[in-house]
Amino acid sequence: MPVDNSANNYDQNLAAVVNTTQGSYRVIVGRDVVDDLGSELKKTGLEGRAFLVADVVMFPSALRRAQEALERGGYETHVLALEIGEANKNLETVQVVYEWLADMRAERRDIVVAMGGGVTGDLVGFAAATWLRGVAVVQVPTSLSAMVDSSIGGKTGVNIAKGKNLLGAFHQPKLVLQDIAHLESLPAREMAAGWAEAVKHGLILDAKLLDKFERLAPQMAALEGEEPVAAIRRSVAIKSEIVSADEFENGNHRILLNYGHTIGHAIEKVSGYGTYLHGEAVAIGMMAAAGIAERLGMIDSELVERQRRVLQSYNLPTTANDLSVNALIEATKSDKKSRSGTIRWVLLEGPGKATTRRDVPNDVVRDAVQSILD
Amino acid sequence: MPVDNSANNYDQNLAAVVNTTQGSYRVIVGRDVVDDLGSELKKTGLEGRAFLVADVVMFPSALRRAQEALERGGYETHVLALEIGEANKNLETVQVVYEWLADMRAERRDIVVAMGGGVTGDLVGFAAATWLRGVAVVQVPTSLSAMVDSSIGGKTGVNIAKGKNLLGAFHQPKLVLQDIAHLESLPAREMAAGWAEAVKHGLILDAKLLDKFERLAPQMAALEGEEPVAAIRRSVAIKSEIVSADEFENGNHRILLNYGHTIGHAIEKVSGYGTYLHGEAVAIGMMAAAGIAERLGMIDSELVERQRRVLQSYNLPTTANDLSVNALIEATKSDKKSRSGTIRWVLLEGPGKATTRRDVPNDVVRDAVQSILD
Repeated sequence: MPVDNSANNYDQNLAAVVNTTQGSYRVIVGRDVVDDLGSELKKTGLEGRAFLVADVVMFPSALRRAQEALERGGYETHVLALEIGEANKNLETVQVVYEWLADMRAERRDIVVAMGGGVTGDLVGFAAATWLRGVAVVQVPTSLSAMVDSSIGGKTGVNIAKGKNLLGAFHQPKLVLQDIAHLESLPAREMAAGWAEAVKHGLILDAKLLDKFERLAPQMAALEGEEPVAAIRRSVAIKSEIVSADEFENGNHRILLNYGHTIGHAIEKVSGYGTYLHGEAVAIGMMAAAGIAERLGMIDSELVERQRRVLQSYNLPTTANDLSVNALIEATKSDKKSRSGTIRWVLLEGPGKATTRRDVPNDVVRDAVQSILD
Repeated sequence: MPVDNSANNYDQNLAAVVNTTQGSYRVIVGRDVVDDLGSELKKTGLEGRAFLVADVVMFPSALRRAQEALERGGYETHVLALEIGEANKNLETVQVVYEWLADMRAERRDIVVAMGGGVTGDLVGFAAATWLRGVAVVQVPTSLSAMVDSSIGGKTGVNIAKGKNLLGAFHQPKLVLQDIAHLESLPAREMAAGWAEAVKHGLILDAKLLDKFERLAPQMAALEGEEPVAAIRRSVAIKSEIVSADEFENGNHRILLNYGHTIGHAIEKVSGYGTYLHGEAVAIGMMAAAGIAERLGMIDSELVERQRRVLQSYNLPTTANDLSVNALIEATKSDKKSRSGTIRWVLLEGPGKATTRRDVPNDVVRDAVQSILD
């Protein structure tokens, strides 16, 4: 079994190191790196047993491959496959994980491995954060949006009936391992939604990455060759830098990641959660934000249209149907980041350059929101 | 309303500053300091609304006094009084707190204030740790054991059917405020159980404090004059120093606080939780640990008897009835701190001086445990 990559290979697959008050950790991105899960985990110095909790869609082959990799690394591994989705991202499902950990007598030195999409990472991460006051967690995200976004930064979350992600904890992983091969079975729509977050990283912070996403769209979407892997790695690095600079989202860095999210969240809420995927709503939200920046004279219409073309080339929507301007604007006001006062808008100043503004006039917002409605 | 203490008074009431990766916080101990709750909270720089969650036994007068103090500090204050005890220290009760916070739209900048005994601090602290990925919490412990022990150090905990405190998080408070006046209504048995933890601090780390507890037992137990307040403050300072040195209990400091706890936990478990109060079981456990140290030649019988006399002078039990040696020894093996291998015993080397040992022969343990059974 070829589990020993060369030192060069490791360097190439290492997308980022995230530095936090809870310690530093590596984010590894590459094809077939799941086979290195055990050897990479060993490098963290963690001992104990591995408790692999996976979305049932990983069952049986992807899950078995991960388990075997852990066992090759010398970890006694136990597996729990669960149906995990937005509909059961709640404390009842977390309790299923708790019960299993209790039955297995999981201890403080043991390791929880979360394998699946964003919901799996959020929910299993929460269980690890709260089991015995926090045990080590390894994130193995298998969707593109989880890879470039939610698996990095330690945010975990669970819904209650009264609201999404109202429960959670900051619980940084000890390792994030992203196997590009897992994306090959991802539905096209989810893949596109993931590209929205990756393109967003280019738009707000890296003009070169944006160029690449623009130039190589068909190749990216088909996951052909090394360019898509390199682009995901770069996107991961951007997210990692931001998290390292602003771990708890109380500075001026992490908020930039919310580009497109104010209107995006409103679209998800008003259309009913599940109508649009999160990344789709963010794509439309980014068009609204670009519209605001254009109206404020921060960017020209050329950049707005360029953003639209890039998003469209990844099969992302840039307008929404059948939603009311008033309902959307009302929904932005109840967004949890804005309740205490004015909304802090993330707006572009140019390609690869974002800033925040609080002084956006209501009629500018209304105009820009109107412009993204069919 | 006289809420302004002099600068001298503040210095006197400040028992300790705890330094952690989540920030530093003050522990204030004094009579009637609950009236300063709002002004002390203000000094932390926290803004937002205050969500005061209290054990229903605080209702109405103690609770109203705390609420008024918060309001005098300028905090919009909302109050939830709950029946909180070991029997409902579970996720269902935490969910009651979540629902209330959701209904009140509690935000990240808001503050949860936990007022009650140890169970209240554990459970409300857990709710605060997991609400919106953690909001500020202030601990206002009202039992002696919560004051000298559980309110300091950021441990929170909730039971599931399969085990006690299996859920939890390290979530450091922003302020701990302890009003000695709250102890006046505490039942005598709970008061004694609290003294067990305070005396323990003297035994393991401070010979002078131990002397004081020995010399002034009647005065302490009656909470007469300033000596008991000073002794509680010193006990709080010891706990705070240890937490600052070993926040996550992975060093060699925090474990010393477990003096008497290995057998203490076994006694609680074998006798059925609730038969002995935690502090009572720890008192008996400390006698077993002293017996081990004596048999290993680490201390002489004089110190063992001195420890017994001190504990008895606080109306604490030093022997247990109707428990089997085998059952107790079996229970120590399933203690969560020992499952992975040998038990790490905390043992005295002299008055005010503790250390840890792993090499305790089984027959020494058996003998010492036998000696604490009637």
